[in-house]
Amino acid sequence: MLKTTSEILRDKGITRPTILIDQARAEDNIRRMAEQATSAGAMFRPHFKTHQSGVVGRWFHEAGVRQITVSSLAMAEQFAGLGWRDITVAVLHTPLADQQAQRLARRLHQRGGRLGLLVADQEVAARVSARMTAPTDIWLKLDTGYGRTGIRWDDRKTLHDVLNACRELTTVRGLLTHAGHSYAARGRQQVSAIYDESLARMRAARRQSGRDDLLLSFGDTPCCSLVADLSACDEIRPGNFVFNDLMQLQIGSCGAEQLAAAVACPVIGVYPERQQVVLHGGAVHLSKEHLLDPDGVASYGCLGTVTAAGLGTVVPGARLVSLSQEHAVVELAPAAADLMTDLVPGDLALVWPVHSCLTCNLLRDQMAVPLAF
Amino acid sequence: MLKTTSEILRDKGITRPTILIDQARAEDNIRRMAEQATSAGAMFRPHFKTHQSGVVGRWFHEAGVRQITVSSLAMAEQFAGLGWRDITVAVLHTPLADQQAQRLARRLHQRGGRLGLLVADQEVAARVSARMTAPTDIWLKLDTGYGRTGIRWDDRKTLHDVLNACRELTTVRGLLTHAGHSYAARGRQQVSAIYDESLARMRAARRQSGRDDLLLSFGDTPCCSLVADLSACDEIRPGNFVFNDLMQLQIGSCGAEQLAAAVACPVIGVYPERQQVVLHGGAVHLSKEHLLDPDGVASYGCLGTVTAAGLGTVVPGARLVSLSQEHAVVELAPAAADLMTDLVPGDLALVWPVHSCLTCNLLRDQMAVPLAF
Repeated sequence: MLKTTSEILRDKGITRPTILIDQARAEDNIRRMAEQATSAGAMFRPHFKTHQSGVVGRWFHEAGVRQITVSSLAMAEQFAGLGWRDITVAVLHTPLADQQAQRLARRLHQRGGRLGLLVADQEVAARVSARMTAPTDIWLKLDTGYGRTGIRWDDRKTLHDVLNACRELTTVRGLLTHAGHSYAARGRQQVSAIYDESLARMRAARRQSGRDDLLLSFGDTPCCSLVADLSACDEIRPGNFVFNDLMQLQIGSCGAEQLAAAVACPVIGVYPERQQVVLHGGAVHLSKEHLLDPDGVASYGCLGTVTAAGLGTVVPGARLVSLSQEHAVVELAPAAADLMTDLVPGDLALVWPVHSCLTCNLLRDQMAVPLAF
Repeated sequence: MLKTTSEILRDKGITRPTILIDQARAEDNIRRMAEQATSAGAMFRPHFKTHQSGVVGRWFHEAGVRQITVSSLAMAEQFAGLGWRDITVAVLHTPLADQQAQRLARRLHQRGGRLGLLVADQEVAARVSARMTAPTDIWLKLDTGYGRTGIRWDDRKTLHDVLNACRELTTVRGLLTHAGHSYAARGRQQVSAIYDESLARMRAARRQSGRDDLLLSFGDTPCCSLVADLSACDEIRPGNFVFNDLMQLQIGSCGAEQLAAAVACPVIGVYPERQQVVLHGGAVHLSKEHLLDPDGVASYGCLGTVTAAGLGTVVPGARLVSLSQEHAVVELAPAAADLMTDLVPGDLALVWPVHSCLTCNLLRDQMAVPLAF
């Protein structure tokens, strides 16, 4: 089976670790999430940090997307340069970035667009409000249970203080949260429980603010993929869903047929005596993100297949059990024993990454190459 | 203390996660390792995958280095373009890369240099030998106990088969190993034991090969830093030592005053109620490499100081306890409690990375900026 995978990858001229995107699957993933937003009556502002790619951005544009989320001002400038005009930078703003934000807000405003910034601190809000020289959207970052950044949903005083600090050319658009603890959930029921709690907390914060006009913006792929009814949100900002990965598969937010990004890696060593093959493909290609499999073993990815039509599926019993800077060690269970005899150095293997956002970030310079099948 | 660190970093105009290199420390680290090689009578062929930087490469050149190691043909081409002529690619060669290797070997040969390739498979060796069109050095990769790639030191048959497969324009220069299991050792005694065993196994393999002329090439920073006498090696290839990091500090192969690379990160959230600050600086800046501290807690880095003269030292009790794509959560123990009151959003913190090679790989495009103090 993988022999065929190797031949197909070789026919593509691949000689080193290279990321492959299945365009049809990615477009399906985009369409499905856009429909999810439409049926909820929510704006769809996908997070572009997952792919960081102008080409993939165009697929979103073709699906009707005009508003995007990014994770840094530098990434906002990249996509502004590609024509995007309505951009939220979803990392808390600091005064360090005031000048860069001013420039970008003017640039987007001149083209009829908007920059959105996140604040959660009274002084930062007052300062950025006083300094902006073009209309700017402000989102108050709420911590609804993840415990990383933002104003705690029940911290009424800070919420008021930050709200009142915003003035001049800034407009407080709403409350924004990222329920990142959904990544520790498994299955629709657990994920939905996190969503329900987070949304209830956002609504409670909005009531306490006395500002009924504030929009509610909600992130994270597990919730946006699995929750049946997102209509309490005014905006959704998932990113990971465009490619999915083994982490989303383990959470249950996608099926294997929705995995849209994989890494082709040269086989450099074959070791039947220890039932392992070694790939050129390490932490600098895949990232050191790992999963704990149900049997408690750490996994840095697993092998997969391709067909002439596109990416295939997961090979059972062929997981990456260790990862150094340039190398991956793949352990082959009895279920994958035929690979042991089929593979030779110079073959190519397909690896499904644990976290596609980190893998794309590492390999984004090569992503344009064999983008479509 | 960190207030001063923040002010110094702010004076440098830093506004986003940025890698800082202390040139004086890096040059000291280079000089010390070059002396270690000289006193052992070994060639010094440092691994450039750690820094991937033309500027840092020049510091090596000024210390007399003319032979280097890299981890891919692409990186070899990068350094060939910068004038380096004697380059070993220390990842097992595969037939996928034959054409690229041919071109590079011709290019280096025309300039009086040499390309070195690693093989451990009879068919790969026969094929590359038949195909090279310029003199090329071949190193037989030996597995002396790490258990990742290479011919097992006691596998006499494969050793002979691969040796005999090399012909035409290729010259077998020697046996090469990377004792990567030294990273799991702690202290000079444990590291030296791994070195002694690996060297004994290399020498045994050389005896079995019947080829007294084969050189012995040895890698890894812990062994090359800590072993008192490396004179049994003909060549050493450490890389990590140029910057060191928390992993090398934990192993014992450097002191805090030899840490030469750190990442300046904006403080974006301050949370006294949970004794945490949150930094803009995540897996895409630092990598998800972690250490287990002696108390069993996973750490993705820790805070440090800078002075006007250069990088400073480690702040006790201020470690990164979790890391997402763009964020680090720093937990402040009572020893670091003053930071809790000093820091505000918009300050800058200094983070010592766990593994400087992976951090440099992620931030290498920004590395040239504030390179020296």
